[in-house]
Amino acid sequence: MKSVAILGPGLLGGSIALALREDPEIHVRLWARRAEAREEARALAVADLVTGGVEEAVDGADTVVLCVPVGAMEGVLRQALPRLSPSALVTDVGSVKKSVCDALAPLVADRALFVGSHPMAGSEKAGLSAARADLFVNAVCILTPEPGHTKPAAIERAEAFWTRLGCRVRSLSPQTHDEVCALISHLPHLTAAALVHNVAAARPEAFGFCGPGFRDSTRIAAGLPAMWTEILSSNRSAVAGSLRTLIAILEPLAAQLEGGGPEAEAAIHSFLASAKERRDGLSPGTTF
Amino acid sequence: MKSVAILGPGLLGGSIALALREDPEIHVRLWARRAEAREEARALAVADLVTGGVEEAVDGADTVVLCVPVGAMEGVLRQALPRLSPSALVTDVGSVKKSVCDALAPLVADRALFVGSHPMAGSEKAGLSAARADLFVNAVCILTPEPGHTKPAAIERAEAFWTRLGCRVRSLSPQTHDEVCALISHLPHLTAAALVHNVAAARPEAFGFCGPGFRDSTRIAAGLPAMWTEILSSNRSAVAGSLRTLIAILEPLAAQLEGGGPEAEAAIHSFLASAKERRDGLSPGTTF
Repeated sequence: MKSVAILGPGLLGGSIALALREDPEIHVRLWARRAEAREEARALAVADLVTGGVEEAVDGADTVVLCVPVGAMEGVLRQALPRLSPSALVTDVGSVKKSVCDALAPLVADRALFVGSHPMAGSEKAGLSAARADLFVNAVCILTPEPGHTKPAAIERAEAFWTRLGCRVRSLSPQTHDEVCALISHLPHLTAAALVHNVAAARPEAFGFCGPGFRDSTRIAAGLPAMWTEILSSNRSAVAGSLRTLIAILEPLAAQLEGGGPEAEAAIHSFLASAKERRDGLSPGTTF
Repeated sequence: MKSVAILGPGLLGGSIALALREDPEIHVRLWARRAEAREEARALAVADLVTGGVEEAVDGADTVVLCVPVGAMEGVLRQALPRLSPSALVTDVGSVKKSVCDALAPLVADRALFVGSHPMAGSEKAGLSAARADLFVNAVCILTPEPGHTKPAAIERAEAFWTRLGCRVRSLSPQTHDEVCALISHLPHLTAAALVHNVAAARPEAFGFCGPGFRDSTRIAAGLPAMWTEILSSNRSAVAGSLRTLIAILEPLAAQLEGGGPEAEAAIHSFLASAKERRDGLSPGTTF
């Protein structure tokens, strides 16, 4: 890995650039669509080259990482194709993988190597100013090879790339990835926003009394609405399914609370105890 | 404030003791029911006196803080009554206030001063080992005077007590407190546990891929099941009401995701954007 093109200067693209910049052997090439973003990237010296031309960014790069919103990935990759090196690995950081891989894999096809990636790192804060060189340290990164289609070399190189950034690399099919992320990322985003709406609808003055529990439970509701609308829409079937299941879990709890009595209390205790047991079992990770 | 009795050596009681211990002028008296807890408190030197006798703990104390689970408060206070100083302020740290104040206020009545308190600080971690002298710094503490019943001197002294620990003190009636906390604390606890159950039911292997979003969203699900069952049961009407409202917020989202299309996307975007706006408006606090 000698020359890495990062397409998109947001939190993830910026954090990749900052992490790679620590190695003087790697030429970091950053593409940003907006002139202000390029100015910011130059001022922060996050890359060796900052350009507004996708073709210039990927020229000679052995690794190309798409770090734009998932709906913009196909268009940016199309711009990159004419100058894409035949030995390049193309990957991305999109939070949904089925639609992204379906769009990107055929474009790369026999021109170069492709495998989807999803580093499970981020923040409710967006943009280059929130980027950190250690954002990926100890994060899980999910590769999404398609059985029978993705070349082993693509998987090997993507694994080496994310491992170098500090990730623990795992693999899932794009479809399974999306079902997993509906449960552990996309649905929690919706419920965080719903908890905020619930307060706003019932008693907005209650926001003035919040403690750390509410803050942590709703932190991700501060994420970018456009980005998250795209993610949720691109995975709407799995998210809707897990939301229906969640509602089916919540309904009996409401009935138990309404009814009261020792049996209801025992049911609620059992519900909380088994959730605690599962939650205690989560490996902490450094981003916790 | 020269002599403070802390009844209960858990996270909150222990943190109060640690904060007060920094002032050599204050005699900190800690009651713990269990011998092991008393040994731990002595080993950590969190108080000037550690005792297994409630009467001994409150003897001569000008301030008495009940820091036991809400269901145990009345019984502990009854043990304290015979030695309670007529000039003492009695308060508590319970997460529900209507049932607690209804039980405690008549017992104190004309014997001493009483007002309920709820410092909005804590952790999913429990016990003295998790206690911190700065736990209350910048936390909101809600006092719950009952209009026409609570004496102004009780409010003034409780306010001074919590302010000294670093809290920002606010007041609500016990009933309003419980409605507010259903929204910002009790319901988020249930949804955190439900998110964990949802993963466990659908794909337990997904726990292996969690990022910081899931960790923060579900952190409070690691709280003590018995304590939280008591809190939820003591406030079951308000929690059930806010849970029904939450379900009514989630239902149309499920339908929008299932239907798809530009109108659904616009609705989801608007939902996320207004949640973000509200969430961004939360004052950060140091416990964030």
